[in-house]
Formats: sequence, C-alpha cells, structure tokens
Amino acid sequence: MQSKSKLQLVSGAPTPLYTQLKDLLRGRILDGTYPPHSRMPSEHELCASFGVSRITVRQALGDLQKEGLIFRIHGKGTFVSRPKAFQNVTSLQGFAEAMSSMGYEIINRVLDFSFVPADARVAARLDIAEGDEVAAIRRVRLLNREPVSLELTWIPSPLARRLEHADLVTRDVFLILENDCETPLGHADLAIDAVLADDELTEALRIEEGAPVLRIERLTHDAAGRPIDFEYLYFRGDAFQYRLRTDRQRNGA
Amino acid sequence: MQSKSKLQLVSGAPTPLYTQLKDLLRGRILDGTYPPHSRMPSEHELCASFGVSRITVRQALGDLQKEGLIFRIHGKGTFVSRPKAFQNVTSLQGFAEAMSSMGYEIINRVLDFSFVPADARVAARLDIAEGDEVAAIRRVRLLNREPVSLELTWIPSPLARRLEHADLVTRDVFLILENDCETPLGHADLAIDAVLADDELTEALRIEEGAPVLRIERLTHDAAGRPIDFEYLYFRGDAFQYRLRTDRQRNGA
Repeated sequence: MQSKSKLQLVSGAPTPLYTQLKDLLRGRILDGTYPPHSRMPSEHELCASFGVSRITVRQALGDLQKEGLIFRIHGKGTFVSRPKAFQNVTSLQGFAEAMSSMGYEIINRVLDFSFVPADARVAARLDIAEGDEVAAIRRVRLLNREPVSLELTWIPSPLARRLEHADLVTRDVFLILENDCETPLGHADLAIDAVLADDELTEALRIEEGAPVLRIERLTHDAAGRPIDFEYLYFRGDAFQYRLRTDRQRNGA
Repeated sequence: MQSKSKLQLVSGAPTPLYTQLKDLLRGRILDGTYPPHSRMPSEHELCASFGVSRITVRQALGDLQKEGLIFRIHGKGTFVSRPKAFQNVTSLQGFAEAMSSMGYEIINRVLDFSFVPADARVAARLDIAEGDEVAAIRRVRLLNREPVSLELTWIPSPLARRLEHADLVTRDVFLILENDCETPLGHADLAIDAVLADDELTEALRIEEGAPVLRIERLTHDAAGRPIDFEYLYFRGDAFQYRLRTDRQRNGA
C-alpha cells in the first residue's frame, strides 16, 4: 500500500510534489475513498505513506481546506467535508421550490407563527408604521431530514392573515403568496455575510457553537414593487452554498 | 440617567418591552451613542438601567445580534459591530471598480505572482490541460487601509503573461484584462458559503482564528464564454457583505 502510494508522486516532475499530493488526495475525497465526515490520515501518516516532507503535506492540506473539501477540528484532526447542497439565486425562488427541483426532500419545522407589533427595523423595511401588526414566522428548514437553515420571516397583516392556516410545513411562503393570496412576486434585495452560530442557531441547526453560518437578509417585493416579506435566513456553512451567475454590464466606453 | 432611561420603556404598551428595549438600543448603536467596537452595557447593567428582567434584556440582545449589529466574545462581553462595507454583485465588477465608486480607497498587497503548472482542479475549471502554465496570484485587498479579503487567482498563460508587468497594486485584474489585454468579460459563476479562518486567513486579514469568513468561488468567462479567471475570495465576515437583487422569473403558469 505504501509503496504503491509512493509510486504515484514523481519527484522532479514539472508539477510540484504538493500539487501532485493535493490532486491525489482530492481524487480520493471525490471518489469516496475518504468518505464525508471521515478523519483524514494525519500529517505524519501522509508524510510516511508518500515519502514527502511535512511542509509538502501541509501545503497540500491547506489548499484542500481552502477549496472547502476538508476542515480541521482543533485537537482532533482533519476531516472530509460532506458535499454541500446549493441553491441557485440568480432568479428569486423559495427554498423548497429551488431544492425540490434538484431531487431534495424539503420539510419545514414551524417553531413559531404569531402576530406581533412590528419593531422599528421590521417596520422600516416593510414600509409600515412601527407597531403595525405583522406575522412573525420562525422555521427550521430540513433538507433530506437534516436541518440546513433557520428562517425568521415578517409579513405585514392583512396579507399575513391569509397565511395563517396555510401548510407551512411543506410549502414555501413564496408559493402560498403567489398561488393562494394572488400576490405575484417581483424582485428581492439580498445582503449576504458570514457569522458564527449563537445559542439559538446551535440548537436549531444542530451545529457546534462558533460554527460558520451564511447569513442572508432578504427583502422581497411584490410585482408592483411593494415590500411584503422581510427575512433573515441562517444557513449551515458546512452544508450549504448560494450560487449565482452575474453578467458584465457594458459601460458606454 | 437611569430614571430617564426607565421613562423610555412603557410596560403594558402594545409593543412588548423587549421590542422597545431593542429599538432603543438599536437607535443608540446607529446614532453612535454606542460606537463601533465599544463594549455594550452588561445584561446586569441593562436590567438595572431599564428596570426590566434578564429575559427581556437577553431577547433584545439576541435579536440585535441576529441583525448583525452586535457580537459576543465569550467571557469578554457584547460589542458593537462596525458598519459593514458591501459590494453589489448584481452585475459583475472587480472589487476596486465596485468599491471606489462608493468612495472607498482600495489598495492591493500582492503577496505572490508566479507561473505554475495548473493542478487538476484549476485545470478543470479553466478548461485547460493539467500541468499547463497558469499565473497564480495571491493578493490581500485593503479597504481604507484595512485588510478585507484574501484573493487567490489563477489565469491561464499566455493571457497571464500580459498581466505580469501590470499595476496589480491599484488596479483590478478585470480592468487590466479588458483595457490592456483587450479581453472583454462576459459572465461569472459564483458559489458563496461561510467558513472559519485558518492560519493563513488569520494572518492575512488580521482576524482571530475561528473568525467567520465569507468564501466565494468565482469563475469568470470572457465575452465568448471561455473561462479565463478562476478565484477563491475570502472576505472578513465582520467587515463585509455581498449584496444583490434578484428577479422572480415568471413561469408559464
């Protein structure tokens, strides 16, 4: 096994050793030789198996970590990331709508649905008066039975009153708004950043405190341009990606 | 001071106490009473100042944390986030191009510019043969003198040979490609997720190990649809947002 491994790296080749090692390890991750969540061989073991220096191993592992294929847990070792689910956000779609077209099963755990007075921030975003009634919805979204996001949603009454008895467990708010409430959607503004999991996210998403979380603030407008749905979406960083395509805009020049 | 604060929260009002407290604290953050990076009053101090229960204070702080206005450091307290810079990615723009139009000064620290054989992944994305020559560029981008992102870029030769003597310190690769290399850009595919800072990111971005990082994988194509620029961009989660607008695509129905 060791001698076979050694044969696969060629010292003095135009491709540096660490690149060869990286490509070999990446291949083993992608073909399932090292399955998701399994522990990678230690630096020491990799040095011995491939007859290369520690600096070569570190450079290869560092690059694979940057690609998102492996991750380190301090004091425990290096582990294989699981393949990330992704949602294409080039056009505006609800989560279930986007994901079920790719063969995923989506179920929502509705933690809370209540009518509350809008706080200053929600009121400002939804262009209503502070204290006006809004529905506050708190859902965990499960992708193939595993929690992938926590979503906090505010929708102004009276529109929200029509959502009250809708099936929020299996249906997207977007589709309910369009199909049941006859409110066609227009555009949404998104802000995307990265935060760490707090207590609530830790519990809702079953991740460790301090795990990376992709945070989306999304304000969805109806076809007439009125804001009707304000949300914070928190996605597990280890399980999910947003993808999009953007085009270069030609300037006059 | 305390009695004045107490007057501002109204028990028994239609707006719950925690919402009133949250709105008041948010106002103080946004008007600079609590400046960026300052420590917020402790839970105990807030309870005493406003005559409210610990659960009310916790709920208000929890919501402000979810909005990204404050963050906790374990064992040290709660701090005010600084306002985040953002880049609108609805259309494809280089970082300097996007940010300088908003009045930011952008400087790049070029850590490395070297010609290397493409590894398997870079070759696959750029649609070239493994081992073909590419330029590997490693830059830290400074926004108003502070590091905001680490960018790893691969560009195939011979195109990259024309970048070798370009001014990468103040100019975007995108503008150099278009203006100096007469290579108009077309579209880019982006994948966005959240990761934790490793050693290299800690050092390059001057953040703590385990800080949240917004990670972008971007493949930029020329106007003819050929991939010409593959990148990993790592943005400080505490300092930066991506923003975009997406439109609902009308289905036939």
